[in-house]
Amino acid sequence: MKIYMYGVYQDEVPYIKEWQEEHPEVTVDSTTKLLDESTVNLSKGSDGVVVFQQKPYSDEALRQLALNGITKMSLRNVGVDNLNHELVQELGFQITNVPVYSPAAIAEFSVTQALNLLRRTKEFYLKLAKGDYNWAPHIAKEMNKQVVGIVGTGNIGSTAAKIFAGFGAKVIAYSRHQNKELEGIVEYVSLDELYKRATIISLYLPHVPATDKMLNEKTFAMMQDGVLLVNTARGPLVDEKALIEALNSGKVGGAALDVMTGETKIFNRQINFQEVDYDEFKDLVDRPNVLITPHIAFYTDQAIKNMVKMSLSANLDLIKTGTSDKLVKF
Amino acid sequence: MKIYMYGVYQDEVPYIKEWQEEHPEVTVDSTTKLLDESTVNLSKGSDGVVVFQQKPYSDEALRQLALNGITKMSLRNVGVDNLNHELVQELGFQITNVPVYSPAAIAEFSVTQALNLLRRTKEFYLKLAKGDYNWAPHIAKEMNKQVVGIVGTGNIGSTAAKIFAGFGAKVIAYSRHQNKELEGIVEYVSLDELYKRATIISLYLPHVPATDKMLNEKTFAMMQDGVLLVNTARGPLVDEKALIEALNSGKVGGAALDVMTGETKIFNRQINFQEVDYDEFKDLVDRPNVLITPHIAFYTDQAIKNMVKMSLSANLDLIKTGTSDKLVKF
Repeated sequence: MKIYMYGVYQDEVPYIKEWQEEHPEVTVDSTTKLLDESTVNLSKGSDGVVVFQQKPYSDEALRQLALNGITKMSLRNVGVDNLNHELVQELGFQITNVPVYSPAAIAEFSVTQALNLLRRTKEFYLKLAKGDYNWAPHIAKEMNKQVVGIVGTGNIGSTAAKIFAGFGAKVIAYSRHQNKELEGIVEYVSLDELYKRATIISLYLPHVPATDKMLNEKTFAMMQDGVLLVNTARGPLVDEKALIEALNSGKVGGAALDVMTGETKIFNRQINFQEVDYDEFKDLVDRPNVLITPHIAFYTDQAIKNMVKMSLSANLDLIKTGTSDKLVKF
Repeated sequence: MKIYMYGVYQDEVPYIKEWQEEHPEVTVDSTTKLLDESTVNLSKGSDGVVVFQQKPYSDEALRQLALNGITKMSLRNVGVDNLNHELVQELGFQITNVPVYSPAAIAEFSVTQALNLLRRTKEFYLKLAKGDYNWAPHIAKEMNKQVVGIVGTGNIGSTAAKIFAGFGAKVIAYSRHQNKELEGIVEYVSLDELYKRATIISLYLPHVPATDKMLNEKTFAMMQDGVLLVNTARGPLVDEKALIEALNSGKVGGAALDVMTGETKIFNRQINFQEVDYDEFKDLVDRPNVLITPHIAFYTDQAIKNMVKMSLSANLDLIKTGTSDKLVKF
């Protein structure tokens, strides 16, 4: 049996080797290139392909893949937005994804950034770089005195809630479905009450029409003065123009953004700050109380290991059994 | 009744006001200046003084204070090393300190810095500043997969142990006295075993002859390759020359130092990197995997509030009752 992997990063290689050793009956070949018209024939002769890319999968590449007899395709990530759903069904593809690769990776990063806002890490970084080794006036706040508002208590939000509770913070949460595991750890409240009471608000929701720009002029106005925001979920949950206003007025005391509305313009590439066509980013990036990171919350060795090994195993299941518990239903 | 405060920082003022409102029978006057020969008479007519300084209290100032009839003196910090113990006893001083002002402040900062080492925050800061918004190759590690070695389980170490456990990390500890509160949270081991097993080592011990340079060439050699170190305790616990060697060889993967052996040369002042007479600091400060902060772990609003209000209350106790539960026994 042979599986071909596209778009392989250096940090994935050790886990491919590890999986290969556990499955000596399978040959895994790979390329650093993405799957497109120019690379589709590299996988010729394989039983399945494992892929990971943010740009769209072209119809032409998918058609050629099917012509080559390969219709078992496993994604190393969650999202299937960049696939032509009708075409893959028409061509008889079976697609798997990795729906949960490491909730802890994202939860831990959101806590790290909340701590960095409380501790004024970026302000210290800037002053220390200038040789200013005074403490004052950059006094910190303690996590155990905060009221942390968790918006969304799925896998990631629940993991984060438990960590925040471990600091002794008061944790309140809003979610459509209450998680019974969090009983005694979290107080569930309405979204309005969360906005009013929290001193730190951290988002763990998908982007759907109902959550689009949920943090906006109106909801900022309900919040505590100096509230700290953490977004490791999806950029469009925050109205970035309204965030800038709220930072200017002091309503928002700091923000950590690992996702942004226009992130495809800036993240995962080399940028030139002068030439970037993204005004809100340009305004936010230099503020000492705003931490922008390029969608790295998920990026841990554990997550990469799970993405690699789970996608390879799902592909092998498709090849051997014709199905997989990670099969995407279109 | 009148209390005079020396060396008042801006961030202490709100808490002085708060205490004053709770004690309308007392007048609190203050200066930003430290207590010395030139300022000692500012407190003339007061019933007691509240002080905070790192430089030595001069014998002359203490004598003049006693001549002015003031022998009730409350420190806003812990240490009494900078007082002439024989003289204060001879002059009949009663001295109080604030032995515990916020264990959580220091514990939380040590966790924050451990997370920043795992997340490679400084490396990201440096690459983002250059417009490099790629994730790779700066992959992070997760706290829940770490073995955290807590050295010393007093107030601060115990608080940190509970927080690390809240992340789902395996927490092992060494301490002369085992803390029963940590049963089920921490596995107590020998110091050698801790050095051998931990992937993160965090120090919470005082500096005494037995702990001087406890992290040295010999103990580094016992540790896991790539071990991460956090020191928010006392600088001289670490042999800094040996640390540099261990960083060079890759034995130590990263270090967060909030305290350093020669910190009085650099911390809490404006420094000029070229002129600093401290070779180990100069070597360490520019490394992307070394985080140096100027003894800020304690510096939170909660800690400052406790230092101010506890010292004022202790001084008032001395004045009113002739003793205090915070009396220092020489």
